[in-house]
Amino acid sequence: MSTNLVTANTIPRAQQILAFLQQHDLRAWIAWRPDELLMLSGYFPYWGASLLICFADAEPILFVPLLEPRDHIPAGLRVQEYPWGDLKCSDPYSVLVSAVGDELSKAKTKSEQVGMNPSSSRTSLPIQAGEQIPIPEGFAGRLSALATKIEPRCQAGFADLYLRKTPEEITAIRQANGVANIGLEAFFENSRAGISEAEVAAAVEATIYSQIGHDGIFHSRGWAMVQSGPNSADAGRFNRSTGRRLEDGDLVLIELATCVNGYWSDLTRTSAVGSPKPEVAQILAIAKDAQQAAVDGVRPGVTAGHIDSLARDKIAAQGLSSFFTHHTGHHVGFRYHDPGFLILPGEPTKLEPGMVITIEPGVYVPERGCGARIEDNVLVTESGHEVLSRLEGSELQ
Amino acid sequence: MSTNLVTANTIPRAQQILAFLQQHDLRAWIAWRPDELLMLSGYFPYWGASLLICFADAEPILFVPLLEPRDHIPAGLRVQEYPWGDLKCSDPYSVLVSAVGDELSKAKTKSEQVGMNPSSSRTSLPIQAGEQIPIPEGFAGRLSALATKIEPRCQAGFADLYLRKTPEEITAIRQANGVANIGLEAFFENSRAGISEAEVAAAVEATIYSQIGHDGIFHSRGWAMVQSGPNSADAGRFNRSTGRRLEDGDLVLIELATCVNGYWSDLTRTSAVGSPKPEVAQILAIAKDAQQAAVDGVRPGVTAGHIDSLARDKIAAQGLSSFFTHHTGHHVGFRYHDPGFLILPGEPTKLEPGMVITIEPGVYVPERGCGARIEDNVLVTESGHEVLSRLEGSELQ
Repeated sequence: MSTNLVTANTIPRAQQILAFLQQHDLRAWIAWRPDELLMLSGYFPYWGASLLICFADAEPILFVPLLEPRDHIPAGLRVQEYPWGDLKCSDPYSVLVSAVGDELSKAKTKSEQVGMNPSSSRTSLPIQAGEQIPIPEGFAGRLSALATKIEPRCQAGFADLYLRKTPEEITAIRQANGVANIGLEAFFENSRAGISEAEVAAAVEATIYSQIGHDGIFHSRGWAMVQSGPNSADAGRFNRSTGRRLEDGDLVLIELATCVNGYWSDLTRTSAVGSPKPEVAQILAIAKDAQQAAVDGVRPGVTAGHIDSLARDKIAAQGLSSFFTHHTGHHVGFRYHDPGFLILPGEPTKLEPGMVITIEPGVYVPERGCGARIEDNVLVTESGHEVLSRLEGSELQ
Repeated sequence: MSTNLVTANTIPRAQQILAFLQQHDLRAWIAWRPDELLMLSGYFPYWGASLLICFADAEPILFVPLLEPRDHIPAGLRVQEYPWGDLKCSDPYSVLVSAVGDELSKAKTKSEQVGMNPSSSRTSLPIQAGEQIPIPEGFAGRLSALATKIEPRCQAGFADLYLRKTPEEITAIRQANGVANIGLEAFFENSRAGISEAEVAAAVEATIYSQIGHDGIFHSRGWAMVQSGPNSADAGRFNRSTGRRLEDGDLVLIELATCVNGYWSDLTRTSAVGSPKPEVAQILAIAKDAQQAAVDGVRPGVTAGHIDSLARDKIAAQGLSSFFTHHTGHHVGFRYHDPGFLILPGEPTKLEPGMVITIEPGVYVPERGCGARIEDNVLVTESGHEVLSRLEGSELQ
């Protein structure tokens, strides 16, 4: 473990961003994706129509729609309104593009010194989560005249900022996992014969939503998907809840995404209803065993591929390797799925302190009518790891 | 009411699409937004990483990820898999672009005969609703070599397809509204002093999610936002739930988006807790009166601007025009907010049979510590209108 790795985690965000800008000869970065705004400024948007300019040598400036709530914008951030929501303005994005251009001119930047990420693929949903974010693709095109530094090396450098979380961010991700665990209690309480998958999932989501107002939580939303009995065998391909009612002997799997104040947790649990047959119970035992083996191996300096092999080998040792069809994990925290390397066979990238990854091996066996996956969110620490998603002192249920 | 208007509503989708392609000299259209897929084929995606090619003179072809569930793909649709989700494929979108190119070549189309819409702004979330859809923006760029017919006139022609719903689509939107109404029952039951806004919203969403499995419903999700007392005065700018506990005398407003099997409802109700002061109760009465006036005016041939004025004039007559700050409505059904003209002051476009619009005037008065909005989804029929969002025979609560 090099000194470099130890210190990476404790560099404040503002310094990391400055270093990124300098390294890529940038004088400004334009951010508009909800997870970028959160990472760069601590602000999580309501509408998803806000835009931030980070400068190399000036304070950042945040543009928000007229309609944006203001009470969750971090104190001290320079804020400028644009007329999104003004009945009299038919093209508020033109006003915004023009205002962004003015600010870049004032800062004497040239377009080749300004970078941005044009893609919204898999980015975080904002607080208003009922539709894709409103910023139109044409908007990125109009901005692109102002920001022409979008080559892959620069994009990769920006994506690298997601990988190592600061202590404050880790606290926030821990809180998201704490809320998710309150939801999981509802999952275990409700997983009984006779209730439908959708009803179990609904109870979990309602529990999570109800946490708003506690402990500084202004936004708390869960996406729970429950699969039982034979449906659990699909959980390696997709997660959804159906109207199927749980039966004695089922495995019941929950995939649960939770967003608290903009920070994400991504968890899976598998439970048994009553007394499953031995060949079904075995699948759950193997998934738990494989997951624990991979979690136990997490520490700085080991490769992602090695972590993957710890889980995959356990499953292969039972002759079930063809039933573990996906990756062992991914980065998490600013999104349901953060950008960055995957925990995959052969992936050579090494873990570093401050990384938060999911560990989520699964075994899905249609001919036994069941599937099981356990997923935790694991922080790489300087000396090893901390499982953020298990309550202190508690055993994995 | 011209014959043209009467028949518009009963032309099957397949014929409408063909007419669109012919009118714009197109031989193919590439669709990938969840609401486009639904409108063009009846298929609503799980992952949001599917792609459909509609041809002018061949059957459409649907590309789905390896990981996509298959049981909700309409029978008879040609389906081709691509390796999204295959651990061994590092760039599945390259495979997809190449396969799309092959199909276009087979159909002997030139890129200038192929259209697409590159924007994901405000499009429907797919069944997996926990993040923005995964299709990367770079993907649209890679497709754009294959589809170069993207000029505004063509985009406008495509957006026009959203405006008039078919009888089957209206049935589906009516079902979404029926499910939303079950959620609204939970809203009225739970709106009592002592419960938090978030808890009320959570109960509504849970009720909606629990409908999966009934009446052919494979997907049912609500986004409920509840604002009470002084918070309801913000509801003209944004909708969110806080931890505030309802108090006697409050107005309580719920904004509710509901997606059932891909079709959307967008409703608002405002309720009173206990006995509000007269100046507060008056605001609710005015909102109801304005909304009903606009609903009553809906029929083919009237302009959207006229419908807006029916609501706006009622509010102005009470000296409160400055407290109604937004549009009176928008199209709805394939999304939370469908594309198309708004119900706005001065909007000259005329209503036609088959259009489904929201009617949602509101009055938000911070100095009285309250706001009220009533929103319904209204179908324009040949003889007038049908309110899809009120149960038959029931009064507006």
